[in-house]
Amino acid sequence: MSEPQIELVPIGRVHSPLKDLAAAPKQGDEGAPDAWLVLAPDLIGGLRGIAVGDEILVLTWLDRASRDVLEVHPRSDSSRPLQGVFGTRSPDRPNPIGLHRVEVAEIRGGRVRVHRLEALDGTPILDLKPVLSANASQR
Amino acid sequence: MSEPQIELVPIGRVHSPLKDLAAAPKQGDEGAPDAWLVLAPDLIGGLRGIAVGDEILVLTWLDRASRDVLEVHPRSDSSRPLQGVFGTRSPDRPNPIGLHRVEVAEIRGGRVRVHRLEALDGTPILDLKPVLSANASQR
Repeated sequence: MSEPQIELVPIGRVHSPLKDLAAAPKQGDEGAPDAWLVLAPDLIGGLRGIAVGDEILVLTWLDRASRDVLEVHPRSDSSRPLQGVFGTRSPDRPNPIGLHRVEVAEIRGGRVRVHRLEALDGTPILDLKPVLSANASQR
Repeated sequence: MSEPQIELVPIGRVHSPLKDLAAAPKQGDEGAPDAWLVLAPDLIGGLRGIAVGDEILVLTWLDRASRDVLEVHPRSDSSRPLQGVFGTRSPDRPNPIGLHRVEVAEIRGGRVRVHRLEALDGTPILDLKPVLSANASQR
């Protein structure tokens, strides 16, 4: 089975006070700061209907990750046994897509401020999605 | 800001009885069947530690989606007002990445059977991730 390559184009970038991988928390609810999601000007229409207080999923491209790693010590803790990357949230994986659940704090045109995002400044954004209601009739 | 393209390679494919977009449910918990996630042989090590009963997130490439759509009627219901794609789970979006939460039912080498996946047969798989525990000490 030969696999085609798939091409993505970032829809925007993260603007964050987090500049440094060593200083970044591993997950947003472990002390991450607010950040701005800055969308490409031609994609602002895609935000229509998103409101302050919404919970959204931000998909990012973890551009500083290693793509040839298949096993890691979870949370970089060498006392924990090696685990396959697909069973961990390690950024190192064949397709390093980050997944972040955040709350919308403010919207200004094509800029969306969100609470507690652990992505580094400059990280490309691939997609935004709503958190699904558990109740299918409310989707 | 000129944006670089990002290249992904599928880590595997969905094998499913769902062959037809018109017959597919919109979400897994709306009547989707079991499916097999068939990993590329050189990536099987990435599954180490994943077990039957685990809840995982499957990221897919929705290769039949339109990438130039920015607004849709949610759930294709024309009585609902147009909404930006980033506020919906429409497959049509600039980077059509699908996100599916499923339970692992069976593992055989590089094949993982999961419950209730609404992705079509042949859909490329981009990544697998664990569902995060709400308790950071259990991550």
